Amino acid sequence: MKILLIGANGTLGRAVHAVLSRRGHEVVTASRKDSDLYVDITDPASIGALYERVGTVDAVACAAGPVPWRPLAELDLRDVRDGLDGKAVSQIELVRQGLHRVAEDGSYTLITGILAREPIRTGAVASLANGAVEAFVRAAAIELPGRQRINAVSPTVFEESLAEYDAVFAGFDAVPVDRAAAAYVRSIEGHQTGQVYRVE
Amino acid sequence: MKILLIGANGTLGRAVHAVLSRRGHEVVTASRKDSDLYVDITDPASIGALYERVGTVDAVACAAGPVPWRPLAELDLRDVRDGLDGKAVSQIELVRQGLHRVAEDGSYTLITGILAREPIRTGAVASLANGAVEAFVRAAAIELPGRQRINAVSPTVFEESLAEYDAVFAGFDAVPVDRAAAAYVRSIEGHQTGQVYRVE
Repeated sequence: MKILLIGANGTLGRAVHAVLSRRGHEVVTASRKDSDLYVDITDPASIGALYERVGTVDAVACAAGPVPWRPLAELDLRDVRDGLDGKAVSQIELVRQGLHRVAEDGSYTLITGILAREPIRTGAVASLANGAVEAFVRAAAIELPGRQRINAVSPTVFEESLAEYDAVFAGFDAVPVDRAAAAYVRSIEGHQTGQVYRVE
Repeated sequence: MKILLIGANGTLGRAVHAVLSRRGHEVVTASRKDSDLYVDITDPASIGALYERVGTVDAVACAAGPVPWRPLAELDLRDVRDGLDGKAVSQIELVRQGLHRVAEDGSYTLITGILAREPIRTGAVASLANGAVEAFVRAAAIELPGRQRINAVSPTVFEESLAEYDAVFAGFDAVPVDRAAAAYVRSIEGHQTGQVYRVE
């Protein structure tokens, strides 16, 4: 398959890129730097330009969704909007603008995370963006055209990221990032839709 | 208790108003018209002005959250943003701006709905807003100051609304709106936090 992978340079994106390539797929990467194509997913026009350049793809996989991390008492309205734009509206735009550009039987695989169900301090914006995307995935699944499918991958913290996040994810079971990458394979090569694949 | 009830004129708001009044609470109503106080919850400045006028309250109960209803293929970016502003950012602002204005041991009760978990056609924006609010409720619960609490009420379609919504909620079990109103009582007078009370 020809797969558009957004956010290919992060810990998760690199793992998804590696496993999809190993499985023989043609992966076109997109991100703000150091990818095949440029995209800023927080800018809807940039998503449109990306789809124009990449042409028809069989799958869209997103491993990017920037959100602010801040204690609830310090959150301002801008943080809430930035988080929704960064992780929810951005990924919904990938789907909305892909409806007539992604191939028949194509799929969207979006990224959420355990904070949708298990909160941590400073993570309220991540939680709400994750919750929005997971509910959207269930809803969009019943309305997508052309037998397109949509799923989310919702991992806990990665072993590879623990050095950075150990304090906020105190006591959480970490998983190898490759397990989350495998959920992308399951979403893309499998046949389910409207699923949230928990990797925890 | 002194309770600020937003959206007091809808099917749900009237039922919540009635049961809270019967139980001896002082209910101050707010909405865009025909309430004690004016508020447009999609306007953060209007929420700030409402809190200034109402003074300290023991509970904030929201029964309002406008969202666009449209098939996925017809959704534009404006619909997505309007839905998030109408039901998610609006309710998050009620909490964010209430942190230092609601009494100690006070509570927030927000409205979501079954579309967070069970999708229907034309409901994708409602789904994503509901999902955002439910995840935010779980997250905010662990960070609220002054022993404040927060819960969501997540009802299915009301028997009283079936004439209007029967086609889109085909085959769903409807509930009397008074059951959803009772969930507000449970949230306000009870002692749980971070809960999503499903009324279905």
